Amino acid sequence: MLVQTFKLYEDREDVTLTAYVLDDSTELLNGKRRPAVLICPGGAYLACSDREAEPVALRFASMGYHAFVLRYSTYLEAEEPFEMIFQGIEKRERTVFPTAMHEIGKSLLLIREHASEWLVDSERIALCGFSAGAHNVATYAVYWNQPIVTDYFNASPQELRPTVAILGYPITDYVYMKETKMDERGAQLFKAANVSLLGEEVPNDQKLEQVSPARHVTSDTPPMFIWGTAADSLVPIGHSTRMATALADHEIPFELHIFEEGVHGLSLATQATASSLTLIDEHAEKWINLVEKWLEKRFKLEIE
Amino acid sequence: MLVQTFKLYEDREDVTLTAYVLDDSTELLNGKRRPAVLICPGGAYLACSDREAEPVALRFASMGYHAFVLRYSTYLEAEEPFEMIFQGIEKRERTVFPTAMHEIGKSLLLIREHASEWLVDSERIALCGFSAGAHNVATYAVYWNQPIVTDYFNASPQELRPTVAILGYPITDYVYMKETKMDERGAQLFKAANVSLLGEEVPNDQKLEQVSPARHVTSDTPPMFIWGTAADSLVPIGHSTRMATALADHEIPFELHIFEEGVHGLSLATQATASSLTLIDEHAEKWINLVEKWLEKRFKLEIE
Repeated sequence: MLVQTFKLYEDREDVTLTAYVLDDSTELLNGKRRPAVLICPGGAYLACSDREAEPVALRFASMGYHAFVLRYSTYLEAEEPFEMIFQGIEKRERTVFPTAMHEIGKSLLLIREHASEWLVDSERIALCGFSAGAHNVATYAVYWNQPIVTDYFNASPQELRPTVAILGYPITDYVYMKETKMDERGAQLFKAANVSLLGEEVPNDQKLEQVSPARHVTSDTPPMFIWGTAADSLVPIGHSTRMATALADHEIPFELHIFEEGVHGLSLATQATASSLTLIDEHAEKWINLVEKWLEKRFKLEIE
Repeated sequence: MLVQTFKLYEDREDVTLTAYVLDDSTELLNGKRRPAVLICPGGAYLACSDREAEPVALRFASMGYHAFVLRYSTYLEAEEPFEMIFQGIEKRERTVFPTAMHEIGKSLLLIREHASEWLVDSERIALCGFSAGAHNVATYAVYWNQPIVTDYFNASPQELRPTVAILGYPITDYVYMKETKMDERGAQLFKAANVSLLGEEVPNDQKLEQVSPARHVTSDTPPMFIWGTAADSLVPIGHSTRMATALADHEIPFELHIFEEGVHGLSLATQATASSLTLIDEHAEKWINLVEKWLEKRFKLEIE
């Protein structure tokens, strides 16, 4: 396996794409190309969680797919403590929408540039995100062939196209989020996330609507696999059901798995990704097996 | 993840240990140590199969364990075609028992030497083998504290001790194998394997008995997880049941899963490790989930 990290901007250390490229062998695909999965960790656009990065990449790699982790633009710098966001924060130009979304496009282009060298099947690249990372993925998935993306790149829509998208406990509707009751700490967290993504704590409805992928599904939106927990008290499961409703209404193929129990941020829901016992869930951990079977339908390796 | 390959002998390229060491993070174990799994691929002591190497390592890595692949001494040199073994082969001193078994000990010492640097929990290292690799693992598991191992190393038994062993479609009883009916190609394959492991096509009973781990289980043999398929026409499942019987008789904890269908050499039994469709099995692929749960009982990560 080749493990290599690329900077997406020459002058910045914080935005990176880490490649986990599988070794080929005459006993395996013998030169044939493999699909890939590009992972966006969550972290409220304030940071990118390690819990939703390498361990998830390795699980997809163990399915026979190349894996990539994108650490997109988020608010906090390396040395800044997470707690500072509770003191109120100022807009930083480098994190404001659509920057993080564009970085998914940059990553797809980088992967496709290396496709021959790494034996990546450019026609089959999944995006997989968690929480804010799932929001980033969902937003890219509805905008990938719209001017907000295509005007930024000197690339064909085909090079920017995501094949499918996998959303774990996503945020998909910022207008709906306005109605959501949350505790004081949750409210402060989302205000900080808003400063990062939209430049202000309380953005107007037009801005909120623009970053609500559940309101922008088109016939070009790729098939999706969505999962979450009904008990999620930070990002209500209504974000998942609203996205699924939009996909259903547009006849986009999708699969939705909502587990009754389980907190926000489960990642693989196993000890491999848990920082505390509440993040281990024997039932919800089955999502990865479900997505493995769902992916196999579209990402079957060329084996005879 | 750190991926690094070590030569076990300075002057040989063919015997290597490849480390897949997980990145730690303040969000993950924050400096606490992880258990490890050392994998021995199969290949009839003639080669080491890529199908039972990196993809398996990545699956164990995705459980939160460091993984290592040992390419132990086998007969064929890099450029030699597998088919040559069907023309009859001559003894090569560098592959004869107990060389490959000693290389497991060398690997454990190497891993334990780097334990602080890699954050490996030296008290919890599993051996995992397939077919001939499972034979190598099983043999080491019964001999690790016997003179045939300890006299070779300048090390304490504690440094050489395997915590548990995982055997996939193993060979465990060469005396029983004498009774096994096989087709001409199978018979030739085992004759070649005998030349590699024991220096001659038809070794005497004393030699066969010595390399039959099912006949050497002691109270110091580690707990084992064994799996295979009843339909295996190359290595009869009787090797697995005989090993399990010996473990039961010695009151060694073990788990045994025999799937009714499935050919020899399934590895993960998914597309990640298949070179042909016969090596994909939707039922037998569950062994890895079963071993994941079995391992968790002993290899639980320190999460509170």
